[in-house]
Amino acid sequence: MSIKRIEPGTRMSQAVIHGNTVYLAGQVGAPGESVTAQTKDICSKIERLLTESGSDMSKILQATIWLADMEDFAEMNAVWDAWIDPANPPARACGESKLATPDFKVEILIIAATD
Amino acid sequence: MSIKRIEPGTRMSQAVIHGNTVYLAGQVGAPGESVTAQTKDICSKIERLLTESGSDMSKILQATIWLADMEDFAEMNAVWDAWIDPANPPARACGESKLATPDFKVEILIIAATD
Amino acid sequence: MSIKRIEPGTRMSQAVIHGNTVYLAGQVGAPGESVTAQTKDICSKIERLLTESGSDMSKILQATIWLADMEDFAEMNAVWDAWIDPANPPARACGESKLATPDFKVEILIIAATD
Repeated sequence: MSIKRIEPGTRMSQAVIHGNTVYLAGQVGAPGESVTAQTKDICSKIERLLTESGSDMSKILQATIWLADMEDFAEMNAVWDAWIDPANPPARACGESKLATPDFKVEILIIAATD
Repeated sequence: MSIKRIEPGTRMSQAVIHGNTVYLAGQVGAPGESVTAQTKDICSKIERLLTESGSDMSKILQATIWLADMEDFAEMNAVWDAWIDPANPPARACGESKLATPDFKVEILIIAATD
Repeated sequence: MSIKRIEPGTRMSQAVIHGNTVYLAGQVGAPGESVTAQTKDICSKIERLLTESGSDMSKILQATIWLADMEDFAEMNAVWDAWIDPANPPARACGESKLATPDFKVEILIIAATD
């Protein structure tokens, strides 16, 4: 079964496609921006990577959301709830994890289908 | 390859089946209850969702466990060790992550096979 | 579709193979050792389990890294960057989660392809 990598780098690939499943690297927004801005940025990056992987918003299987501070749960959710495909909501989990630096407030990990 | 969603809501689906793999939403127990009670509640919810997905306890592939406080490791494990199918133990990881509110002490993420 | 378990125990299996995907248990190093030593130990364990699963370093799809303290990000990355297959970097995410005991500083969760 083929493996294809999108935007491979020295530390990670931004997406890895195996058969008809794609695993995205944890996506983050611009450091220092608001939770709303970072979450919107993440959503845009996910959409772009899904498109490059031959997938789309309707095919997200699982989303794991890390918040650096769970106090930001409602602010992240406002963006999330408006963003997901209402006909095709993914499985989801959200927990608190500090991220690479304190300027990063949200990170989202995605597994999606390509068909 | 087909995608089927179980209990889709405005924020997430409780389970998403892709081919012969099912991804469950992070399951939590009743807020404010003991770690033992929350873990047992989670196990029941997982069993129900696996059944609805055409899977069962013998087909759990990966479990990721989040504890709000790692001090609860032994209490959660006592329920876990008695619960899993001894003939078919899943891959597992357990880390500390604060959850949606302080009343939630355990959350478990499951990937399982449907055949 | 077949499910095969590697090193099944009373709490978990060290790896579970489903079709052509393998899920590893969260791997940790020797407690109390340095971040460098623990990460190297983890990498060795991952390589061994991938081999036992009929996979290898070139087929890692997704790596989720938990650090007990994000201050150790650079030290873990130095081992990681030297370890991964430069031709086949996986999708990756890294967040802070305290682990089973304070002596454990790094844990890595792997999903890989077997073909």
